[in-house]
Amino acid sequence: MEFKISKEFIAQIEQLISENKEKELHDLLLDIHFADIAEIMDELDSHEASYIFNALDSEKTAEILLELDEDVREKILRNLSPKEIAEELDELSTDDAADIIAELSQEKKEQVISELEDVEHAKDIVDLLRYDEDSAGGLMAKELVKVNENWNVLTCVKEMRAQAENVTRVHSIYVVDDENRLKGRLSLKDLLTTSTKTPISEVYIPKVDYVKVDTENVEVARIMQKYDLEAIPVVDELGRLVGRITIDDIIDVIKEEADKDYQLAAGISQDVEADDSILELTKARLPWLVLALFGGFISVHVLGLYEPAMEIHPELFFFTPLIAAMAGNVGVQSSAIIVQGLANNALSGSLFNRLLKELSLSLLNGLILAILLIAGSYFLLNIDVKTGITVSLALLSVIIMASLIGTFIPIILDKYGVDPALATGPFITTSNDIMGIIIFFSIAKAILGF
Amino acid sequence: MEFKISKEFIAQIEQLISENKEKELHDLLLDIHFADIAEIMDELDSHEASYIFNALDSEKTAEILLELDEDVREKILRNLSPKEIAEELDELSTDDAADIIAELSQEKKEQVISELEDVEHAKDIVDLLRYDEDSAGGLMAKELVKVNENWNVLTCVKEMRAQAENVTRVHSIYVVDDENRLKGRLSLKDLLTTSTKTPISEVYIPKVDYVKVDTENVEVARIMQKYDLEAIPVVDELGRLVGRITIDDIIDVIKEEADKDYQLAAGISQDVEADDSILELTKARLPWLVLALFGGFISVHVLGLYEPAMEIHPELFFFTPLIAAMAGNVGVQSSAIIVQGLANNALSGSLFNRLLKELSLSLLNGLILAILLIAGSYFLLNIDVKTGITVSLALLSVIIMASLIGTFIPIILDKYGVDPALATGPFITTSNDIMGIIIFFSIAKAILGF
Repeated sequence: MEFKISKEFIAQIEQLISENKEKELHDLLLDIHFADIAEIMDELDSHEASYIFNALDSEKTAEILLELDEDVREKILRNLSPKEIAEELDELSTDDAADIIAELSQEKKEQVISELEDVEHAKDIVDLLRYDEDSAGGLMAKELVKVNENWNVLTCVKEMRAQAENVTRVHSIYVVDDENRLKGRLSLKDLLTTSTKTPISEVYIPKVDYVKVDTENVEVARIMQKYDLEAIPVVDELGRLVGRITIDDIIDVIKEEADKDYQLAAGISQDVEADDSILELTKARLPWLVLALFGGFISVHVLGLYEPAMEIHPELFFFTPLIAAMAGNVGVQSSAIIVQGLANNALSGSLFNRLLKELSLSLLNGLILAILLIAGSYFLLNIDVKTGITVSLALLSVIIMASLIGTFIPIILDKYGVDPALATGPFITTSNDIMGIIIFFSIAKAILGF
Repeated sequence: MEFKISKEFIAQIEQLISENKEKELHDLLLDIHFADIAEIMDELDSHEASYIFNALDSEKTAEILLELDEDVREKILRNLSPKEIAEELDELSTDDAADIIAELSQEKKEQVISELEDVEHAKDIVDLLRYDEDSAGGLMAKELVKVNENWNVLTCVKEMRAQAENVTRVHSIYVVDDENRLKGRLSLKDLLTTSTKTPISEVYIPKVDYVKVDTENVEVARIMQKYDLEAIPVVDELGRLVGRITIDDIIDVIKEEADKDYQLAAGISQDVEADDSILELTKARLPWLVLALFGGFISVHVLGLYEPAMEIHPELFFFTPLIAAMAGNVGVQSSAIIVQGLANNALSGSLFNRLLKELSLSLLNGLILAILLIAGSYFLLNIDVKTGITVSLALLSVIIMASLIGTFIPIILDKYGVDPALATGPFITTSNDIMGIIIFFSIAKAILGF
């Protein structure tokens, strides 16, 4: 059922553009969903993308604008006059329009706003621009269906019909008092199943979940997921109903949050995509690499201190990368599990129990790996048993250390309000590398004596 | 507005349970949302959790069952008879009921099904159990609102009211023909804004997005996100309407998918949580560690081959962990960006362009890091310039190699239908470690000659 973009289809479009057949292009794209057209435009160069944009009707182009990759959208908007942009925004709901305006330069922003036709719409958009984009205010739309608690059902239905015209999806009908303070809600289901003569005060549900304008977006996402809500009303400091957040906006928040944790675990420090510029990618990647390099300097220095051991036990230096890598791997595993637990609010029990559990877990894993190491180094690498046992003991200690560090650094960071995902990735790997090498050589020195 | 679980509140509940005050407990929890009660029960021991469960009314307990952690739910269900479980399931929608039944043993499953009161409901649940849990069939619910294209609006509204009683949220009204084949949809908004005298055939929208029962769940998620759908109908092989998937089920799919990528990147091979048993956690973590250990054996072996260099250039062995770590870090960064690009369908352009870009990017990063390395090893570590330049050249080469491997292994895996996220984490780290060491010593040998 989904439209699949084929190479042939793209070639056909490019052909039509090069032959300047605007009418044919318009007809070809007539039945294609705006999300698919946006995908096609993302694949084309900016001249071709602009050509398509100009060939289409404005209800469709407004939606396409929303779906485009940010850099493609930027290029399209650059080619449009403030008046043309305003015409696109007039087609969009307030939250989407505000998101696009927020991407414009300050000067163009003001020009576009002054060109908006619908004054109410313009006022709502300007209002939304005030809020931090990571807050409930930044997520919400002004479009919603609300009724006054003092109305009777007949007035309600009439008013709602008018309001529903502006709302893409009606999730809930909110009930407010004369001061616009949120009092409760009416469900659509009740509307379908209740006789039309019932007065509002008798049918509305006085218990309603809501968030405040300054609630953080991840918190909004958590609440909507937990209580399984498809929309949630937003109130201001005085409890007045100012907007509504729908579940589709929350999906983006959830995805971004998960992507961010993943990127941090991989040592990428800001939100980047494969198609971003080399400079942006470098800015996101280099800081962690520089950190890791300086961590590497420390390990070089530490190893230098043990140079005297080289003559008697050169094999220790062959095992160093193995020990360091295992320390890094174990640390990343432990921290990833904790970071996810923290993100999903799924950590229960005391710190002491967690310590015990992590200790047992790393002991079990460490013992198995230590036995494999003794066997492997004896049979595969022809290392003598005494050295094998020494390295294995070191491995076991290093694994326990790494899993404890991996477990508790995220918990501590979280306690102090720092994003625990920071602790995964290069930070844990690097510090565990260094600690691993120190522990390894200390144990080796104690057993083998050099 | 959200209920916050405090330690005092939990203590109060434990107190009431120990004093066997069921009535007081019931009243205390009366106004608390089932999702919050489930969270409280997750914190308590299984005896206390069962006590709470028994003290509550059955509409609430059914919803609580759904929200509980899987292991807590398992314990509660173990204490219930098939008849009691069936009573809980009678309160739930078909998809949720099927999910819970699927967790039971084969024997108990059949007993519970035979105890279900509502025969239609039971039939629907049994039908849902047939589908793979990762397919559209496994996600969908049987509850939906549908009307026949041949009805008039009056019949429709009457029928819909009856149907809506069973549906928690009405997203769309689906239109079917006499054979139950999906023909289109009616939007609720149209319902609110159209005169009640209009015939169905005139108002329904013949274009409707749908998925097939065997569509993969991640594909369903992608389609619903792309087309911004809050619900999507599911049809069987003959195009007959068999169910409906709502956006809240899709959120779980999106989260699970993102969590899975993150876990793979951290070297955890199956879906585990911090609160799982030590055995389960070991099963998820040990395989990658064993793989990394064997990778480590290779690096020990390779380093052993270069033992002769030790006498003249011991410092090379001090730098080995640094080179290996940098190779691992760069590889993980590159692969993470590609894996996310693949997951979000956001990779455009040819393979050749991607190669060029990754080459330039790693050259830029590598050069900066190489200069830092020369400076750092000269000023901080007192390494002579020639060795410093040798190590830096090796670092530059290793970074280029690591970023190319990190970029193209996920792309190749994806081409052959393997989850590209597998390539991040220990797999890339380990292979880059080994490759890094080989490149490092080859370059050192060429320049320093040993």
